[in-house]
Amino acid sequence: MRNRDRGRSANIKRRKQHLIEQMPWCLPKIIDSPTEPLDQSGVEAIHNGAMRILEDIGIEFLNSEALEIFKKAGCIVKDQNVRMDETLVMELVGKAPSTWSITPRNSRRKLTVGNKFLLFGNVSSPPNYWDYTLKKKIPGTREHCQNLLKLSQYFNCIHFIGGYPVEPVDVHASVRHLDVLFDTLTLTDKVCHAYSLGKERVEDVMEMVRIAGGFSMGEFESDPKMFTNINSTSPLKHDYPMIDGWIRLAKKNQGLIVTPFTLAGAMAPVTMAGAVTQSIAEALSAVALAQLVRPGASCAVGTFTSNVDMKTGAPAFGTPEYMRATQMTGQLCRFYNLPMRSSGACVATVPDGQAIWETSNSLWAAIQSGTNLIYHAAGWLEGGLIASPEKFIMDCEMLQQIQRYMEPELVGTTEDDIALQAIKEVGADGHFFGAQHTQERYTEAFYQPFLSNWKNFESWEADGGIWTVERSHLLFNEIISDFKPPNLDPSIKAELSDFVKLRKREGGVPTDF
Amino acid sequence: MRNRDRGRSANIKRRKQHLIEQMPWCLPKIIDSPTEPLDQSGVEAIHNGAMRILEDIGIEFLNSEALEIFKKAGCIVKDQNVRMDETLVMELVGKAPSTWSITPRNSRRKLTVGNKFLLFGNVSSPPNYWDYTLKKKIPGTREHCQNLLKLSQYFNCIHFIGGYPVEPVDVHASVRHLDVLFDTLTLTDKVCHAYSLGKERVEDVMEMVRIAGGFSMGEFESDPKMFTNINSTSPLKHDYPMIDGWIRLAKKNQGLIVTPFTLAGAMAPVTMAGAVTQSIAEALSAVALAQLVRPGASCAVGTFTSNVDMKTGAPAFGTPEYMRATQMTGQLCRFYNLPMRSSGACVATVPDGQAIWETSNSLWAAIQSGTNLIYHAAGWLEGGLIASPEKFIMDCEMLQQIQRYMEPELVGTTEDDIALQAIKEVGADGHFFGAQHTQERYTEAFYQPFLSNWKNFESWEADGGIWTVERSHLLFNEIISDFKPPNLDPSIKAELSDFVKLRKREGGVPTDF
Repeated sequence: MRNRDRGRSANIKRRKQHLIEQMPWCLPKIIDSPTEPLDQSGVEAIHNGAMRILEDIGIEFLNSEALEIFKKAGCIVKDQNVRMDETLVMELVGKAPSTWSITPRNSRRKLTVGNKFLLFGNVSSPPNYWDYTLKKKIPGTREHCQNLLKLSQYFNCIHFIGGYPVEPVDVHASVRHLDVLFDTLTLTDKVCHAYSLGKERVEDVMEMVRIAGGFSMGEFESDPKMFTNINSTSPLKHDYPMIDGWIRLAKKNQGLIVTPFTLAGAMAPVTMAGAVTQSIAEALSAVALAQLVRPGASCAVGTFTSNVDMKTGAPAFGTPEYMRATQMTGQLCRFYNLPMRSSGACVATVPDGQAIWETSNSLWAAIQSGTNLIYHAAGWLEGGLIASPEKFIMDCEMLQQIQRYMEPELVGTTEDDIALQAIKEVGADGHFFGAQHTQERYTEAFYQPFLSNWKNFESWEADGGIWTVERSHLLFNEIISDFKPPNLDPSIKAELSDFVKLRKREGGVPTDF
Repeated sequence: MRNRDRGRSANIKRRKQHLIEQMPWCLPKIIDSPTEPLDQSGVEAIHNGAMRILEDIGIEFLNSEALEIFKKAGCIVKDQNVRMDETLVMELVGKAPSTWSITPRNSRRKLTVGNKFLLFGNVSSPPNYWDYTLKKKIPGTREHCQNLLKLSQYFNCIHFIGGYPVEPVDVHASVRHLDVLFDTLTLTDKVCHAYSLGKERVEDVMEMVRIAGGFSMGEFESDPKMFTNINSTSPLKHDYPMIDGWIRLAKKNQGLIVTPFTLAGAMAPVTMAGAVTQSIAEALSAVALAQLVRPGASCAVGTFTSNVDMKTGAPAFGTPEYMRATQMTGQLCRFYNLPMRSSGACVATVPDGQAIWETSNSLWAAIQSGTNLIYHAAGWLEGGLIASPEKFIMDCEMLQQIQRYMEPELVGTTEDDIALQAIKEVGADGHFFGAQHTQERYTEAFYQPFLSNWKNFESWEADGGIWTVERSHLLFNEIISDFKPPNLDPSIKAELSDFVKLRKREGGVPTDF
């Protein structure tokens, strides 16, 4: 695969200069029209299907507070089954803002969710870790998690931190959220997330985010400072802790994303339209609840609709079916005027060719669907069971290219862009390297990769013949050893640390989930 | 990277059954609206720029026959510079059909060029070969070339044979076209191509295609049976042999594709709009010539506009700049009502992650631009300097997914698709695996990969832990050893063989190009 020794150190030296050649922090905006596989009647068919589910079949909410809220709003509640009519659902969905913001402790990292912005989050929640030194899958540790947080901070193209980038299984579950949020809030200054897995976790994380930002209670609740993502337990069910967290965050005016787990053929119909219909119904039921708790609550609809391997039941991602389901969901989100979340998902076990075609398909589906938040946009493998730093860095190269792709200047057609004068000057026997028109523009004209090799085979071979995954691994080591955490007032850091100590002394949280 | 011995034979056995699980031959049609980065005024700016180039600056034609033809048509010809006014160009371009066909020796492999069809061609013209056994870059041989032709025939998603899938450098250039065309016409039954590199080559290939199809002269010329692709020598120049072949094929009513070689910052302006403008002018000048030779000649416009690495001058492909240039070219092709060609290009040296993100970007740009013919859609590496069978097979997995993606059934929203009855039946506590709705559909519901691994990490590891590139290599060996050439009447094969012998006795063709 490569000539390990020859040229290795030369290569590292060369890339050292590249270490900082990344794009500046920016919030890219989708400038393309969305890809719309459905015509108006197709959108209506899915909408009507979702409304029939909500009106006639109902969604189970295994949460008594939610059931009370729905009952009070006039829904038909029978045991845990909630049925709500179209008029009410549409009235409530209409109260959700089409665009909202999240402001983390560093206000320059403020995000706008909606309004065609396309924001990238790191991989979230894999229980396992793989890297190119190990070359095996092992349970995640706090150090792995910290390193992935460092990558999340280092890369400007990562806009938000989803869940734990890998589960640190070496930290007891009762206090894991305290340690990881401490790491997240000290190693990064970007928007972060609370798992809706029990009231104590949710409340602890909200309090830590408040402390880290130096926010008063009033400031914290004045607009979203963090967010949660909940998954329905498809088909047609919302579990207790997810909905508990959902209500708690709604009460405190934080960001709310609901992502049904609708794998077609398993937890949802085998037809993509059927799976999307069910997903939309499950999502809207949670949006309706949030609007009952707080009219105007900041909600987004996520999609995780994909197909399974019908031979094994295993989920697949980045497939043609996944892409179309994502695009269809995008059409429905525009119909409801709600921001949308999708994923940078793949099912490949290692960061190889398959991982990239699946991820690339997922990322293009996100763009095509008008997605606003891409979860797992960097670092995910094996359907979310593995986090990998090499995959993370490879994904960031793809994300940067998307950012560049969205720059309106790239498709400018001013007189200067058309460049007739330069074409005339160069004529039929010259070249453009030396042209004034080129000289004035060349440093900024094109996307500059930090990981791709653009050298020819011979030069690449002389550098050690290193494949993408290993180049990524070398870069990972360099980034981690060079990493500098973002500024944080020492008194705030101490306050966070004290909070963690206090809550650990109190025993952390129950772990009977 | 893998556990080489454990599970290898089991894995081969498993995939053996997969060997034939590919999609049937079909001509996919783009059902998505194109991505249009330019508004109407942007399209007009590029069109007007191209017209100014053609009217005021002119294109060099290093071919006296072409100069005579242009002169007769009223163009301003000064030495080798040809200027033509917008009225004439648009009148001539208007004579080119928006859709045309190519019928190879097997009429069931007939292709429609245009009308939203998206057709895939194999890699064409690399001088070098790389495979996973060699793990190095070596000059191509006839055996390499034959093996890549076998892959081109084997995979139903490959619709046409471009140039030689690798240059067989072990065959003397004077007779190379005879041997490779013999191989192409006996190992495949798909549409094929003639290089416009000297009159003898072009005439020999046309004659061999005629013989292989059992066509009379009249039948051969009644509509296209093969095609050529020419490149302009950008900036603003068409060389002698390319235009000679162009005229010869136009006279005989064969397919004509012109692809300017407009790398932004090198042979074209550093701005993408400028590079596209120049490319369009160069392409239209050839289309105009073809229409003067034969009004209604079957033409398509190719794009090869990309950026270079401004540090080294090396070309880059599959970049954000490449994607936008391709989409812009698509808008202009629709403006002129001409079919379009683009490429499945990448610059990576080996079939790794980078190769796939670049290729995936190129393929998505093709879809987004409304491309009709994708050259180099399988097997290309290092900016076209290397052909690789592993990359070929990996690309075919991506191409099949695109075919599946384009199936209208995938986004159906009939009552059966929405599946309310199934959702009701399964309710909140079941799953869809056993549902009648699923059982009736599951075998055909989802794309089935032939190369992707959808097993979990542990099962994949038990199978040998084989990365995509190596799985592809193993499959390559299996396909080659199983390969059966398509039917060909033995008398036709003998006639072809005799023609090759005769032309070799005559000394082949001059090699002073």
